[in-house]
Amino acid sequence: MKRILTQVIPAALALALGVSLATARAEDPLPSWNDGKAKQSIIEFVAKVTKPGSPDFVPVPERIATFDNDGTLWCEQPMPVQLFFALDRVKALAPQHPEWKTKEPFASLLKGDLKTALAGGEHALLEIIMATHTGMTTAEFEQIVKDWLATAKHPKFKQPYNACVYQPMTELLAYLHANGFKNFIVSGGGIEFMRPWAEKAYGIPPEQVVGSSIKTKFEMRDGKPVLLRLPEINFIDDKAGKPVGINQHIGRRPVMAFGNSDGDREMLEYTQGGSGARFELLVLHDDAAREYAYGPALGLPDVKLGAFTPALYEQTKKDGWTVVSMKDDWKTIFAFENK
Amino acid sequence: MKRILTQVIPAALALALGVSLATARAEDPLPSWNDGKAKQSIIEFVAKVTKPGSPDFVPVPERIATFDNDGTLWCEQPMPVQLFFALDRVKALAPQHPEWKTKEPFASLLKGDLKTALAGGEHALLEIIMATHTGMTTAEFEQIVKDWLATAKHPKFKQPYNACVYQPMTELLAYLHANGFKNFIVSGGGIEFMRPWAEKAYGIPPEQVVGSSIKTKFEMRDGKPVLLRLPEINFIDDKAGKPVGINQHIGRRPVMAFGNSDGDREMLEYTQGGSGARFELLVLHDDAAREYAYGPALGLPDVKLGAFTPALYEQTKKDGWTVVSMKDDWKTIFAFENK
Repeated sequence: MKRILTQVIPAALALALGVSLATARAEDPLPSWNDGKAKQSIIEFVAKVTKPGSPDFVPVPERIATFDNDGTLWCEQPMPVQLFFALDRVKALAPQHPEWKTKEPFASLLKGDLKTALAGGEHALLEIIMATHTGMTTAEFEQIVKDWLATAKHPKFKQPYNACVYQPMTELLAYLHANGFKNFIVSGGGIEFMRPWAEKAYGIPPEQVVGSSIKTKFEMRDGKPVLLRLPEINFIDDKAGKPVGINQHIGRRPVMAFGNSDGDREMLEYTQGGSGARFELLVLHDDAAREYAYGPALGLPDVKLGAFTPALYEQTKKDGWTVVSMKDDWKTIFAFENK
Repeated sequence: MKRILTQVIPAALALALGVSLATARAEDPLPSWNDGKAKQSIIEFVAKVTKPGSPDFVPVPERIATFDNDGTLWCEQPMPVQLFFALDRVKALAPQHPEWKTKEPFASLLKGDLKTALAGGEHALLEIIMATHTGMTTAEFEQIVKDWLATAKHPKFKQPYNACVYQPMTELLAYLHANGFKNFIVSGGGIEFMRPWAEKAYGIPPEQVVGSSIKTKFEMRDGKPVLLRLPEINFIDDKAGKPVGINQHIGRRPVMAFGNSDGDREMLEYTQGGSGARFELLVLHDDAAREYAYGPALGLPDVKLGAFTPALYEQTKKDGWTVVSMKDDWKTIFAFENK
């Protein structure tokens, strides 16, 4: 009875005061983060920029946070999810393309020889993307992405790809949102590949997704206005393209920026270059057991993605950027771990 | 005393019930609109899409409204404001460009002969825009726009240009915002020309402005990361470009769209093409006394802007688009009228 009372009375009091239980208990907003420098630096920064009267106070409309996606919000190993999607689309479309049997990079792909298929570098990759991502309307492409995500599984985790999002980062997104921040994805990945699932996974609506894109064309099809996806690159939202994409879509310099690779360097530099308090963070993939360990900053081979270079690592120290060790700073990486 | 009580008691009751006085009095949300078909169509539409359980209900995240700017939210006569800005910039920059004394279109411009200057058509216009809008950082350009707006005045109204916004439309923006809509500008004008003042004038933040743009380039200048404005067109957000810009920036089809010319036709068609309830509106400039009367739909000469063509007028009838007569539907056009 005594125990019940000690639980019930504060709850009743909290409710009577119109305060939620969560607040009354002062719950940890980032429960999947271990206590440490990284977590502390985030919480201290948010406290100082949201405190009225603080010299670092940032008005709500200017609280812009930008997040890289691949390797920052979800898993990008053993290769970026969008590439898994493209390869599955090549297989699905192969019956309509008998010429692919002898035409590279498709011939090797269909034989399961990814290495030979991608030996053609950027040109081969572009051919695969254009063959699988264009020629349909934007609405049709959205449905194709949704249908694929509903069945495809990550090869290591045996989970849908959109379950392979980092729980510490989804907590961080919710925490920033609750503190008046507007969160944007700023990714080298395809904008139309992310929008169909980003709202559910991250609470980030389509209008807050910035990414690489192809050109589209307005046309009337059977009397219905549609946008047709054309096989032509519109914008590459990577490296020095990220500040350009941020300016184009958002029109303000971010106050906080989050990434995990050399592709995010300019976004973090651009963020830091603004006046007033700014925050920059990079995720280091050093947990081979629970996720993957990769990147030259660890002395591991550069796998042509998520390349956290030694130079970038030096820059984090020089510029005071926060580095998150997935191994040490994250208690839980994926929600499915605890199931 | 009796009068005081009849005022005080309902107010006290309303406050006790947590209802604001404004709501308690059921204040007109669009006081600058005359009662009539246009005003009624807006209010009825908003009521049905925001009423839970209504077959036309639209969830808050999907409540996207897009507004053309020139001639829809602010005055575009006797020529678009951005062109006044460009001409003033040519004059300001002339001392640094002695070659302009003999080089068209600048030579004629500097002599005040706008007609000869613009006789070169689109090419001449592009030369003027590139000479005045590029070669500086995005932050420098923002300051140039703000400084110009602080002193320049509209030739007819003798008011700052950003005071020449239509009061019925700013009321409409506030009304939609209060009903869960996210308002976007979707304009053929320059995105970076509108952002510096749109938040104050319309309550529309920079990230909700879509417009035409030039390319920018990220670079380090004296160790500071900046974006340099390049003399190269990135995107023209007009006509069939408007649905493309909407998809690129917003990623959702609007539920409501507002324009005033043939340049908005595709945006309205694209809006109407979505499933569920949609709303389209065009502003007709038929008030020569209080503003301007122009456009072929009135049998007046097409002044190469705001061209509300007879074909577009026919389409409003066929497709059920609302037409607003500035003369008949707007009680007040500009806030300064009542001063």
